[in-house]
Amino acid sequence: MSDHGYEAGRLNLPFVGISTFGKSPYVADWTTIDADVAILGAPFDFGTQWRPGARFGPRAVREASTLFSFGHAGAYDHEDDATYLGANVRMVDIGDADIIHTKTEESHANIEFGVRNILNAGALPVTIGGDHSINIPCINAFAEDCAAHGPIHVVQIDAHLDFVDTRHGVTNGHGNPMRRAIEKDYVAGMTQLGIRNVSSTAKDGYDDARARGSDILSVRQVRKLGTQAVLERLPKGARYYVTIDIDAFCPSIAPGTGTPSHGGFLYYDVLEILQGLAQRGDVVGIDLVEVAPAYDPSESTQILAAQLLLNFIGFIFHARKEHSEPS
Amino acid sequence: MSDHGYEAGRLNLPFVGISTFGKSPYVADWTTIDADVAILGAPFDFGTQWRPGARFGPRAVREASTLFSFGHAGAYDHEDDATYLGANVRMVDIGDADIIHTKTEESHANIEFGVRNILNAGALPVTIGGDHSINIPCINAFAEDCAAHGPIHVVQIDAHLDFVDTRHGVTNGHGNPMRRAIEKDYVAGMTQLGIRNVSSTAKDGYDDARARGSDILSVRQVRKLGTQAVLERLPKGARYYVTIDIDAFCPSIAPGTGTPSHGGFLYYDVLEILQGLAQRGDVVGIDLVEVAPAYDPSESTQILAAQLLLNFIGFIFHARKEHSEPS
Amino acid sequence: MSDHGYEAGRLNLPFVGISTFGKSPYVADWTTIDADVAILGAPFDFGTQWRPGARFGPRAVREASTLFSFGHAGAYDHEDDATYLGANVRMVDIGDADIIHTKTEESHANIEFGVRNILNAGALPVTIGGDHSINIPCINAFAEDCAAHGPIHVVQIDAHLDFVDTRHGVTNGHGNPMRRAIEKDYVAGMTQLGIRNVSSTAKDGYDDARARGSDILSVRQVRKLGTQAVLERLPKGARYYVTIDIDAFCPSIAPGTGTPSHGGFLYYDVLEILQGLAQRGDVVGIDLVEVAPAYDPSESTQILAAQLLLNFIGFIFHARKEHSEPS
Amino acid sequence: MSDHGYEAGRLNLPFVGISTFGKSPYVADWTTIDADVAILGAPFDFGTQWRPGARFGPRAVREASTLFSFGHAGAYDHEDDATYLGANVRMVDIGDADIIHTKTEESHANIEFGVRNILNAGALPVTIGGDHSINIPCINAFAEDCAAHGPIHVVQIDAHLDFVDTRHGVTNGHGNPMRRAIEKDYVAGMTQLGIRNVSSTAKDGYDDARARGSDILSVRQVRKLGTQAVLERLPKGARYYVTIDIDAFCPSIAPGTGTPSHGGFLYYDVLEILQGLAQRGDVVGIDLVEVAPAYDPSESTQILAAQLLLNFIGFIFHARKEHSEPS
Amino acid sequence: MSDHGYEAGRLNLPFVGISTFGKSPYVADWTTIDADVAILGAPFDFGTQWRPGARFGPRAVREASTLFSFGHAGAYDHEDDATYLGANVRMVDIGDADIIHTKTEESHANIEFGVRNILNAGALPVTIGGDHSINIPCINAFAEDCAAHGPIHVVQIDAHLDFVDTRHGVTNGHGNPMRRAIEKDYVAGMTQLGIRNVSSTAKDGYDDARARGSDILSVRQVRKLGTQAVLERLPKGARYYVTIDIDAFCPSIAPGTGTPSHGGFLYYDVLEILQGLAQRGDVVGIDLVEVAPAYDPSESTQILAAQLLLNFIGFIFHARKEHSEPS
Amino acid sequence: MSDHGYEAGRLNLPFVGISTFGKSPYVADWTTIDADVAILGAPFDFGTQWRPGARFGPRAVREASTLFSFGHAGAYDHEDDATYLGANVRMVDIGDADIIHTKTEESHANIEFGVRNILNAGALPVTIGGDHSINIPCINAFAEDCAAHGPIHVVQIDAHLDFVDTRHGVTNGHGNPMRRAIEKDYVAGMTQLGIRNVSSTAKDGYDDARARGSDILSVRQVRKLGTQAVLERLPKGARYYVTIDIDAFCPSIAPGTGTPSHGGFLYYDVLEILQGLAQRGDVVGIDLVEVAPAYDPSESTQILAAQLLLNFIGFIFHARKEHSEPS
Repeated sequence: MSDHGYEAGRLNLPFVGISTFGKSPYVADWTTIDADVAILGAPFDFGTQWRPGARFGPRAVREASTLFSFGHAGAYDHEDDATYLGANVRMVDIGDADIIHTKTEESHANIEFGVRNILNAGALPVTIGGDHSINIPCINAFAEDCAAHGPIHVVQIDAHLDFVDTRHGVTNGHGNPMRRAIEKDYVAGMTQLGIRNVSSTAKDGYDDARARGSDILSVRQVRKLGTQAVLERLPKGARYYVTIDIDAFCPSIAPGTGTPSHGGFLYYDVLEILQGLAQRGDVVGIDLVEVAPAYDPSESTQILAAQLLLNFIGFIFHARKEHSEPS
Repeated sequence: MSDHGYEAGRLNLPFVGISTFGKSPYVADWTTIDADVAILGAPFDFGTQWRPGARFGPRAVREASTLFSFGHAGAYDHEDDATYLGANVRMVDIGDADIIHTKTEESHANIEFGVRNILNAGALPVTIGGDHSINIPCINAFAEDCAAHGPIHVVQIDAHLDFVDTRHGVTNGHGNPMRRAIEKDYVAGMTQLGIRNVSSTAKDGYDDARARGSDILSVRQVRKLGTQAVLERLPKGARYYVTIDIDAFCPSIAPGTGTPSHGGFLYYDVLEILQGLAQRGDVVGIDLVEVAPAYDPSESTQILAAQLLLNFIGFIFHARKEHSEPS
Repeated sequence: MSDHGYEAGRLNLPFVGISTFGKSPYVADWTTIDADVAILGAPFDFGTQWRPGARFGPRAVREASTLFSFGHAGAYDHEDDATYLGANVRMVDIGDADIIHTKTEESHANIEFGVRNILNAGALPVTIGGDHSINIPCINAFAEDCAAHGPIHVVQIDAHLDFVDTRHGVTNGHGNPMRRAIEKDYVAGMTQLGIRNVSSTAKDGYDDARARGSDILSVRQVRKLGTQAVLERLPKGARYYVTIDIDAFCPSIAPGTGTPSHGGFLYYDVLEILQGLAQRGDVVGIDLVEVAPAYDPSESTQILAAQLLLNFIGFIFHARKEHSEPS
Repeated sequence: MSDHGYEAGRLNLPFVGISTFGKSPYVADWTTIDADVAILGAPFDFGTQWRPGARFGPRAVREASTLFSFGHAGAYDHEDDATYLGANVRMVDIGDADIIHTKTEESHANIEFGVRNILNAGALPVTIGGDHSINIPCINAFAEDCAAHGPIHVVQIDAHLDFVDTRHGVTNGHGNPMRRAIEKDYVAGMTQLGIRNVSSTAKDGYDDARARGSDILSVRQVRKLGTQAVLERLPKGARYYVTIDIDAFCPSIAPGTGTPSHGGFLYYDVLEILQGLAQRGDVVGIDLVEVAPAYDPSESTQILAAQLLLNFIGFIFHARKEHSEPS
Repeated sequence: MSDHGYEAGRLNLPFVGISTFGKSPYVADWTTIDADVAILGAPFDFGTQWRPGARFGPRAVREASTLFSFGHAGAYDHEDDATYLGANVRMVDIGDADIIHTKTEESHANIEFGVRNILNAGALPVTIGGDHSINIPCINAFAEDCAAHGPIHVVQIDAHLDFVDTRHGVTNGHGNPMRRAIEKDYVAGMTQLGIRNVSSTAKDGYDDARARGSDILSVRQVRKLGTQAVLERLPKGARYYVTIDIDAFCPSIAPGTGTPSHGGFLYYDVLEILQGLAQRGDVVGIDLVEVAPAYDPSESTQILAAQLLLNFIGFIFHARKEHSEPS
Repeated sequence: MSDHGYEAGRLNLPFVGISTFGKSPYVADWTTIDADVAILGAPFDFGTQWRPGARFGPRAVREASTLFSFGHAGAYDHEDDATYLGANVRMVDIGDADIIHTKTEESHANIEFGVRNILNAGALPVTIGGDHSINIPCINAFAEDCAAHGPIHVVQIDAHLDFVDTRHGVTNGHGNPMRRAIEKDYVAGMTQLGIRNVSSTAKDGYDDARARGSDILSVRQVRKLGTQAVLERLPKGARYYVTIDIDAFCPSIAPGTGTPSHGGFLYYDVLEILQGLAQRGDVVGIDLVEVAPAYDPSESTQILAAQLLLNFIGFIFHARKEHSEPS
């Protein structure tokens, strides 16, 4: 008997149906999340310093994710000879955090509230930005979780260091999140991959980051080291929080973003790191930010984000299953 | 005490949240529709003769509709001094009919099934195409409803007559629906507004339409007559089925469509006819077709479709309420 | 027996086939033109003062024209109850004049050569630009024709007066053609419709035009007078050369042009003037210029150009037939 | 002797040179403004409730304005037989107010500072947004000016009433400015033109506006009354502050904006009102907001804004000259 | 004496002239094909499961091909120090197969008819899609040719396996062609290059393909092996039919396609395989599919397709000449 | 004390302010240039053979450059642990050369005049095109400079050889500049990197270039050799003039150009060559050409150009400082 599920029911082609992430069920009541992984949209973009529009990132990534949402039982990958995201991985989409225009703190608080609800439900939080400032409430939400389960190691994949402390009074813009994260006592370490070229972080920010123990690698440095060597610089078996700024990628595949920077990662550069992370430790939280669809009529950027997230989530639960099974 | 509902709960700005039509609840189980009006997507576009892409019409119109979905209690219109779509109008979105690529008849059958479910639930069906061929299953679905409640008068708002009988064996393409409709014994009459310029319907199609009693008016003829005179050509108190091809409009406000035709309607030309229809008789079914978002980076076309549908639905239920209340 | 021609042969949908204008036969050898009307592309745009790109006008208008090229025997217009462009009108596309980059005079000479070939063949020349400077060689080509058949009256439909004599040595740019035209002894008069707002022509150009007898009307003045009154200002029964700059139209329907100007004509404003011209005199030459497709992703501009030209050509030959038949 | 200035110096075609507004001189030091009219950019867009991007409005409008910046001595208008913006009108561009991401109040304060500098210099302030919330600091800046010269009457041209008092704590978003304005004791009255369809202002906002004496007219109402009758509803000889939201216009000519609304004004609807205002009283301040170029690849929106502003400024100084001359 | 042919005749810049493929002669009568290679357009796209629009692929690729169609005698490649596509290679464009909307089988039959005509004329058929389902009639057309000259080995360059047998009754969509091909007794083998990520083919499709002897390699596997090793896995001296789905390429250079998949081939990855194929055996048929220009405003996708095809055709005839000459 | 300069003054985010290159001061009077490096725009594009639009290159690159113009004291690069473009490098923007439509020689003369003024002021000229023909006046302007300081070696980074002598009388189009350059007695040598695929230069052009000693390397050849080996083929310590055609890059990162060619350089391919050039000799002039923003809605192309130029200028003055300091 075939198990792809096409014999009965709908064909459900990718272009058909309401756009939730991966066509997963929508859960409007955040007190009833019962899932392994929950998607939260964080459509906030007042923290940007160049082109805005990441507020439409969650909707764009959701719609693009339907391209990969065929009705068969899980996603078969012939290179790995593995089926990911089978029926055993329960994914839900809990919609978006409420955003209040002109109000940064209130909006951030609503994002934090969403992530905390997911964590309370025991699910893996995957937050889709919005600009990179939304990482701040995402990390804030881990305070209790870390108190209970131990600290996190933040892995940032990004073109920019985002390590500005404060400037003209701004502490919660999209140039500040990594500086905010490292201040937490439950952030045990930080790895920053893809960092290149001039950005809002000045030299003093780099000095500060290095002094606080962050491991900063450029795209060229990552490639020279190779995936395996990069992974080995991370603490093994740690709890990783992974924050992916889509501008870590080359503008050739991610033009739809606020502050593109040439010389970025290509697809497998990052995919293989993410696959390695899933195997090396426990990925406990994810955010993917800065998809601004208005600048990419080809929709490649959101397709990249969706393809990456679906694969990453697949890797994580595949690794969890392997870990929990006797070898 | 204010009744706009902002004091409690979410601000719920237009750009926040899952894109159902008008942010109405999504009803996945078509046997449980309990509403006054239900939205069905019909993302079928194999019937097009020029630019395809109307399969993404339902998603585009849904997303655009959120622009008009502020959290206040209904939509206040200062020109009419009326509040439309208040809490008393229960609207749901039932998602999309299942579409089977390369298969026209099967896809049409699935659309018909959706409309029939809405009618069975006693709700007003509003189908968003897809190309104009999806009107064929929409009309088919009315067979039982008309047997019970009487025939319908079809009001078409369109640039093209769509009155081809058969050509090279094609009977269910987007040039055929009005010919298919008029064949039904439960279609009592037809009014075709906005028809202009050359199209796939040749002279014999016009002759056929006129011979069958259709009332054909061009944009210039509609404007010369005026809204009131046009309305008076329609049977009063009839059951109207309204099919709106977005290419009825001037390409200046609806460029995102497969077969644009210059010289079309502007916004109020059509809005006022729709408002008049809601008052003159009973609108029992609606479809809006041929929104193809790929050709309109400004998103004006889908915003037009959403603005028009939300207003039209508002007019219909406002008129129903007035009719049911003692004056 | 049906005469629409679908029973046999190909369905030939608009999106199918090589893009010549109106899917008419391509005539590569300019010495063998045997037709009533011949289309020439003039992809020259070094004369522009703002956005270039009109060199792709001929290709864009050709491709758009296929939208209106259904296989039926002529184009039936239900408003006029007339069939235009039936089999009796023989149309050919002779391709493009050879353009030499950096060389204005040589390129213009090649355009003039093409138009002269069409005139020698006794066909109506319809030249698709290219920027408005290509009107200069088009008019030059009429020297012999006018010597034989009498002078022409130039009807310009445009946002800009294009009446600059010389500036910084430039005499053949897109701001000069009407000044160049009026210098010809075979240009008997000039009517300039749609002129509005600031442009490269300064006050002295207007004074010069008026002094030379040109009749200049703005969009608002044309509308206030009405089509009929405007037509009556033109000499009856004259030989008209009509030059249409697509920027005469409102940018809402013609955004794809180099120098848009708000407040322009809508579709029927111009269509009715063209229909009136076809009836009032003998249209002996046409050019349509300044379609620059790169600025209009919706393709509305080239669709407008194609729709207008096909209708205009239809009107001309319909009127010629009527004139030649006993009433 | 010709006075268009082309004989000497540069041809200076529109596409050549640095993009200041109207190619006017840039004044970096705001303490040295010596001009009749000064342009200020206010690239703030955190107050938007749908599509952001108006922060790029000032740059887009500046670039578009160069299309109308030919080198001749003023802009000759053949319909009015008048030359506007001659050498006697001294225009400067003072660049942009400093904007602080995530910080609304600080950014608004910087805008207010710029307008106040212009007023102190005795020049007419023309502020280019940015979203409509930037009207709030513009009006704030008039406190001292009004104390000295008398109150202002605010004329708003807009699709939306923008009359929300406070919601979820938001008082300075783009839905609030008219409510903020009417609170000022130096705002003597308000006229709101173009208001239509559903928006963030609920019924209570309309009631509040009417109760405070605002005159609200829809597009259809303005057209029915006619320009002259509309103008006569305004106090004659008053000091007008004019705030133009580009979404007052039909999306056909202004698609590049955050919250488009169909059924808007066309070009001459507004131009003639502005020309009338310039003659009826003293225009003492202008802002034009919500141009978001990312949504309009045709650039029509910014061309509209530039064309409108240059004409309006021309009308104002033409009227001032006429008023100051003995008739 | 120079042989580039510029001295006489036209300069014939790329942007000038009617868009046939490579500006080759158009042959309307398919019974009179007299050429070495013939181009057929197959503008069918009802088989797509995500974004439609490949029906405009043939026109887009033809227009892009003119970029590479300078008038010199053949295309000189300095890396190979060889001149390709000299006057000895006779190329024609036979236009498009007739497509019937809503009708898959009839449309496919017309494509098959076109390819069979080319084969009957002894020319190399190069079919430009259209979606990948058009490969089905292309392969069907080889039945007689293979009966006469021996079987073919199919080389697929694609992101997706396209090996679905039947699903919901669909057997001829763009997910089915490779399954349809391998069923033919005249298909001796199959090599599938570039296959990656999730697609409509589920695990059972992969199992089926492997069981039938197909050699499946991902992009990473191809790169790891190297071009030469990949080529050596193919039977030497065989008759190759090459089907290129443009989505085999990275979306960075081929965003204009229906179902993009990140991680694809770059230009030389594929070019060098094609050059190797031309030398290793006899390329007897080609199709290139899934170019959907609506999603790529930069036109890079169709430029890629044209550049690739022109080079590939050049390689093939260069290799044929070398093979036929004594070494 | 911090030296990033944020404590006082403006935050000056990238999207704020007038768009000069790198937000450097604008110098309108070319007789008063007092700087180390001066930017000149050369918005001329009548020399193109495919898509025009490079006339908007200078404005696009200027606007994109503001993305990298944060207010800190210089640009810190963590890979090099160096700060580039500190306060010691005085950069100015002198605006654009005057361009005369339809007039190639006059426009080129104005560009030459601008470059000569920069050289006379002792500053490094950086000219932003415009099409590649603008390199001709740039090189012409070096006659006196080379007479005084010695010849230059031209390093071209480009897809196309641009070595056409004359064709149809054209000697100054964008296919001619390298042929024009090598004719100068003050051009000592030439290196042409990135050359690939068919272009307007036929075989005889390559033969001519090689005969005159030019070193031609394709993208694949450059990569095979490696950056260091490529650099060593250039004369050490020479005076380099570097001309960068943006189409040297892969269309994936530079789609916004007239004649894209697949298989081009990626970012670091070129950046590392430029960094090496700055160290190997004295870069005395730069032009960057063929950025045509109309074809790249993502703005990646102009961002690439700006990022490259700012880094290159940084490298040059960093190297100059190192050379002038005792080690």
